Amino acid sequence: MTRPVVGRLRAGPRDTIADVAGVTVGHATLAEADIQTGLTIVRPHAADPFLQKVPAAAVVINGFGKSAGLMQLNELGVLETPIALCTTLSVGALAMAQVRATIAAHPGLARTTTTVNPLVLECNDGYLNDVQALVVGDAHYNAALAAAAPAFQRGAVGAGRGMSCFGLKGGIGTASRIADFGTLRYTLGALVLANFGRLESLIVAGCPLGAVLGDRLSERARLAAAQRDDGSIIVVLATDAPLDHRQLRRVATRAAAGIGRTGSYYGHGSGDIALAFTTASTVPHDASPPVRDIRVLAEIGLESLFEAAAEVTEQAIIDALFTAETVMGFDGHIRYALTDLAPDWATLMPPSARIR
Amino acid sequence: MTRPVVGRLRAGPRDTIADVAGVTVGHATLAEADIQTGLTIVRPHAADPFLQKVPAAAVVINGFGKSAGLMQLNELGVLETPIALCTTLSVGALAMAQVRATIAAHPGLARTTTTVNPLVLECNDGYLNDVQALVVGDAHYNAALAAAAPAFQRGAVGAGRGMSCFGLKGGIGTASRIADFGTLRYTLGALVLANFGRLESLIVAGCPLGAVLGDRLSERARLAAAQRDDGSIIVVLATDAPLDHRQLRRVATRAAAGIGRTGSYYGHGSGDIALAFTTASTVPHDASPPVRDIRVLAEIGLESLFEAAAEVTEQAIIDALFTAETVMGFDGHIRYALTDLAPDWATLMPPSARIR
Amino acid sequence: MTRPVVGRLRAGPRDTIADVAGVTVGHATLAEADIQTGLTIVRPHAADPFLQKVPAAAVVINGFGKSAGLMQLNELGVLETPIALCTTLSVGALAMAQVRATIAAHPGLARTTTTVNPLVLECNDGYLNDVQALVVGDAHYNAALAAAAPAFQRGAVGAGRGMSCFGLKGGIGTASRIADFGTLRYTLGALVLANFGRLESLIVAGCPLGAVLGDRLSERARLAAAQRDDGSIIVVLATDAPLDHRQLRRVATRAAAGIGRTGSYYGHGSGDIALAFTTASTVPHDASPPVRDIRVLAEIGLESLFEAAAEVTEQAIIDALFTAETVMGFDGHIRYALTDLAPDWATLMPPSARIR
Amino acid sequence: MTRPVVGRLRAGPRDTIADVAGVTVGHATLAEADIQTGLTIVRPHAADPFLQKVPAAAVVINGFGKSAGLMQLNELGVLETPIALCTTLSVGALAMAQVRATIAAHPGLARTTTTVNPLVLECNDGYLNDVQALVVGDAHYNAALAAAAPAFQRGAVGAGRGMSCFGLKGGIGTASRIADFGTLRYTLGALVLANFGRLESLIVAGCPLGAVLGDRLSERARLAAAQRDDGSIIVVLATDAPLDHRQLRRVATRAAAGIGRTGSYYGHGSGDIALAFTTASTVPHDASPPVRDIRVLAEIGLESLFEAAAEVTEQAIIDALFTAETVMGFDGHIRYALTDLAPDWATLMPPSARIR
Repeated sequence: MTRPVVGRLRAGPRDTIADVAGVTVGHATLAEADIQTGLTIVRPHAADPFLQKVPAAAVVINGFGKSAGLMQLNELGVLETPIALCTTLSVGALAMAQVRATIAAHPGLARTTTTVNPLVLECNDGYLNDVQALVVGDAHYNAALAAAAPAFQRGAVGAGRGMSCFGLKGGIGTASRIADFGTLRYTLGALVLANFGRLESLIVAGCPLGAVLGDRLSERARLAAAQRDDGSIIVVLATDAPLDHRQLRRVATRAAAGIGRTGSYYGHGSGDIALAFTTASTVPHDASPPVRDIRVLAEIGLESLFEAAAEVTEQAIIDALFTAETVMGFDGHIRYALTDLAPDWATLMPPSARIR
Repeated sequence: MTRPVVGRLRAGPRDTIADVAGVTVGHATLAEADIQTGLTIVRPHAADPFLQKVPAAAVVINGFGKSAGLMQLNELGVLETPIALCTTLSVGALAMAQVRATIAAHPGLARTTTTVNPLVLECNDGYLNDVQALVVGDAHYNAALAAAAPAFQRGAVGAGRGMSCFGLKGGIGTASRIADFGTLRYTLGALVLANFGRLESLIVAGCPLGAVLGDRLSERARLAAAQRDDGSIIVVLATDAPLDHRQLRRVATRAAAGIGRTGSYYGHGSGDIALAFTTASTVPHDASPPVRDIRVLAEIGLESLFEAAAEVTEQAIIDALFTAETVMGFDGHIRYALTDLAPDWATLMPPSARIR
Repeated sequence: MTRPVVGRLRAGPRDTIADVAGVTVGHATLAEADIQTGLTIVRPHAADPFLQKVPAAAVVINGFGKSAGLMQLNELGVLETPIALCTTLSVGALAMAQVRATIAAHPGLARTTTTVNPLVLECNDGYLNDVQALVVGDAHYNAALAAAAPAFQRGAVGAGRGMSCFGLKGGIGTASRIADFGTLRYTLGALVLANFGRLESLIVAGCPLGAVLGDRLSERARLAAAQRDDGSIIVVLATDAPLDHRQLRRVATRAAAGIGRTGSYYGHGSGDIALAFTTASTVPHDASPPVRDIRVLAEIGLESLFEAAAEVTEQAIIDALFTAETVMGFDGHIRYALTDLAPDWATLMPPSARIR
Repeated sequence: MTRPVVGRLRAGPRDTIADVAGVTVGHATLAEADIQTGLTIVRPHAADPFLQKVPAAAVVINGFGKSAGLMQLNELGVLETPIALCTTLSVGALAMAQVRATIAAHPGLARTTTTVNPLVLECNDGYLNDVQALVVGDAHYNAALAAAAPAFQRGAVGAGRGMSCFGLKGGIGTASRIADFGTLRYTLGALVLANFGRLESLIVAGCPLGAVLGDRLSERARLAAAQRDDGSIIVVLATDAPLDHRQLRRVATRAAAGIGRTGSYYGHGSGDIALAFTTASTVPHDASPPVRDIRVLAEIGLESLFEAAAEVTEQAIIDALFTAETVMGFDGHIRYALTDLAPDWATLMPPSARIR
């Protein structure tokens, strides 16, 4: 699949979040008539994150959203469940699915050991999906978890099935970048659930494509693209660099630059959230040993990771736009794929644009 | 019911959160064998808060908790559902109950209008309650909502049914204080879900009662009181003072002083959260009119509200301890009421202590 | 002066922050041999802000900076002095200048009335300026204050005299945008102190100019451009829209999108701070009346202000780059003006770029 | 000196912040007629903190204050100068003193190496001191720094010379506590600059002494005690426990519990700030090695440190009140020492109070 390439840094071998060793992604997709939804799971490693917690930090760019689990994640600096992405009204259902899955695996939960902190992030797919049907539940959660693998689909799949982005078809996108610090080399990967933006604001690799694409939509489709303002974007960043919670928070903050480069201004109704985690270490559930040595990067080493975080976020959003297919769903609503609306997109880009 | 009285300010006529006109509280209580749980609803006014949103702010004192809805509440400065309090693993279920109730009332939800932000706050009642049974759901939510009234029970009821506080029986407590600012007079009320603290640290009205009470427990009960560290406290503050979001955040912050005076140090495992709202104005769901005049208090007028917020929080915690009854629940676990363990508590207090 | 124009919204008549009625800007510039520095003052209105405080909010995008006054500004939601911009090591000196100026005007300061909260924001001009000379003081503060006017210079003046931006000459830039909300019309203006970015990352109006410009620098100049990483950007946003503190914080957050669009990733060493204030109301120093009615915009009305905030920030950075002149300063260091290095810049832009 | 003892944990050998090995404190005191002020320095270790930075975190309980340096401290997680405490209007002057001292030691400052982040915390001593005289400067800073030692004075000395606390004489107080975690043993020390509170609210070791003491003041003194509301408290916590920035932030948060126990409600005009640092490791100024191993405590091990942080803060405030002497200063104003006003204070305490 050809698409515009942004930034200066080079991508990893897959150009996906799975270039960070151990990270896997699974989807459950529901696509039938009015139901165009699903869920996507990011697993930080192959083990149980309740026993081997993962250093993490989250940043709220715009808090018009319903995500679960961010308060405790930022207090304790770890995540302890797989990351679940889904449609907005189903956050509670997925949180319960995570609770039940954790009880099944840990019979002492909330009795002899601590409680579990469900981690569910969301966007609103209510244009293409019958969002009030509340169909996603335990079975889909377990299926997506079981399906998690280093190779995974992008575009209109999983939680991205019903999502819209810049008035076009959005969904799941991913990318990776290599960040060097002296002789050290780290990978930073992103997975986005892209459901934000207004068509007329769209910028692709610096090119204001939105205005051009708008002319190709019927008036009705253009109105539909314009009138929605309650989108959102979730950015999940993974890295193998040895970072602590504070450093991960700094990395997550850079997602805002990447989002801004696509033409977004973090719209009022958009729940824009970035979460970063590292696979370089884990935190054991029990307190043994009472003191641990952990490896941390010198602060100046964050510079290239920051650059990578901005690039990889922009690239992952482009990936979502270029991998999504046209979808018709709820009440006959249609979102056109960018590549369907503009198969000639490459001719619209400036000569300097890199395309791969 | 006699109990120690703290602070300098006088209470309102009921000495409950319902002294703030319009505020009502309802419970659903489940108390049978291993199931000792429930839920408590605080309604900020008699109308639908989705249509008439309520200025609010929340402060996270210690974020080891799973509450839903705080991110959007602090971004937009309003709450738009009744406040639901419950046991920790049921937050998702109650969020779904709020979603379904809002869909029922507003058929365009998340389609033609925005989504809804469920607001659920929690503590872990896993010592007295079979917390893994996950019994609380829509029916209890609707029942508690329907039961909301200015007069309501305290102690081991509703969400407080299975809660523990300082190794004793905790639960729901409430209090109010009158705050004067020149000729202006405002009411500040608190409702707490008290499930925090270690017995040996308990301070009642300045008196270190914990040490004395500890000697009255059997060794087994004393061990049980000591070993739990994953409590929490939720403080809901209501006022009729005309405050904006920023000022409400400042008021909520003062709950920390009241909690500290009872001997808490905001333990590691305790999700300590304070939320403040005002009934002085509402924010309409739709954007008409595009510009509104809202009344706000001069900043210096916050002084007595801050004093009241600290006092009313401490008093509400005392109220929970003194209204709770002894409860036996899950696996035969018992939490003793302070008044059962020390019917002679008044004789243990210093001569200066005020008792009412 | 022609320059690239970004965004969809139209500018106000001056295309400066002074399009917000009442806002004025003054500079004091020191440009002699090794001393290439100065200070810039933004006055929110013509009156004394200590008596007529101004609703304001600040957002820290990257906190590697030394600004004074932001903590109290965010606690109380107002600014009470003119906004002073200067070089990093002189923040304390300027804070003292503000203290002495306030004492002179208010003999009861910190005795019979409250203290004053100095507000000083900074970047590091240590490449072009002898930053250790610490030359800026009371006389320059008072001169810049007296010079404040609706018409003012941009580029290598005032606090911008010694600043670098993307390895080129940076400094003071400004722009404005008109934001409509139904029949309501508001102005949003920006003034930036631009001292951030790495040449190879520079994007102007979507066009990656940095790579091209780099080829035109001598190797020595290119190394100098690359090796500095301790830049910063201060964004001051002014509006006449009736917003409260929380809403101003939301507006300020959108500066991050504008900064990101110029190629920045909020570098590790960059103190990136945005501050927004409104001229729609003031808060009297004394508490009379005890309760006031203030006008606030419906939340949905923020949408176009958010778009404007992102655009006006990007435009003001471009303004700084295109108005700055080449400067030689400390130790013979030189920063080239973009327009000197690339007088043919317009031919490097894509055909779609708007130029005015 | 006898004084009430609070809490359950035992103190270190000195019962001061210097029980944390390596921490030293120095004062410069100015006490002549209208000038009753000074400054206090806390050195985290004997080396230069610019080269050997110290992991640290700060929490703003109430942000009505002018402290310098907290933004960068929380972004980078370290402090890099000695901690300076002084009167509110002199923060800028002390920041400049720190800048000049750092330039003297590091000629490449802000040129070939980074800038320095001055760290100055303040309260307003404007009742006893001619606060507008702005007398504190470089000479006092250097003198206090040179005087730093493990043994140091408390009460009306250094920055505490002119401070008031609960309408009584306040100033510098200190205490320490030992926190055990299994077989591990850590020390937590506090130093406070206590300048907050209203007499009628004072609680000493649970006993509401304020009401009693109020009756002993002349009406004029009582009015003076009541009318000031612009106090503040700075709490500096030091520990030898191996904690990262996030954990230090959690420890600092617990100072709020200790402040609350003395009767404070974090008054509107009070800049209440807590800063915690650890001596268990340092962060080198340069980036070598690029990756380091640092030791961190298991999260559950924070429990006793939290308890210690609340206790040690309350104890340090009591220490300030009991070590301060009566001072007459600016305009003939007098603040009485608690021990002068109530030499019989021990008889006013409940029989259970511990006194040492």
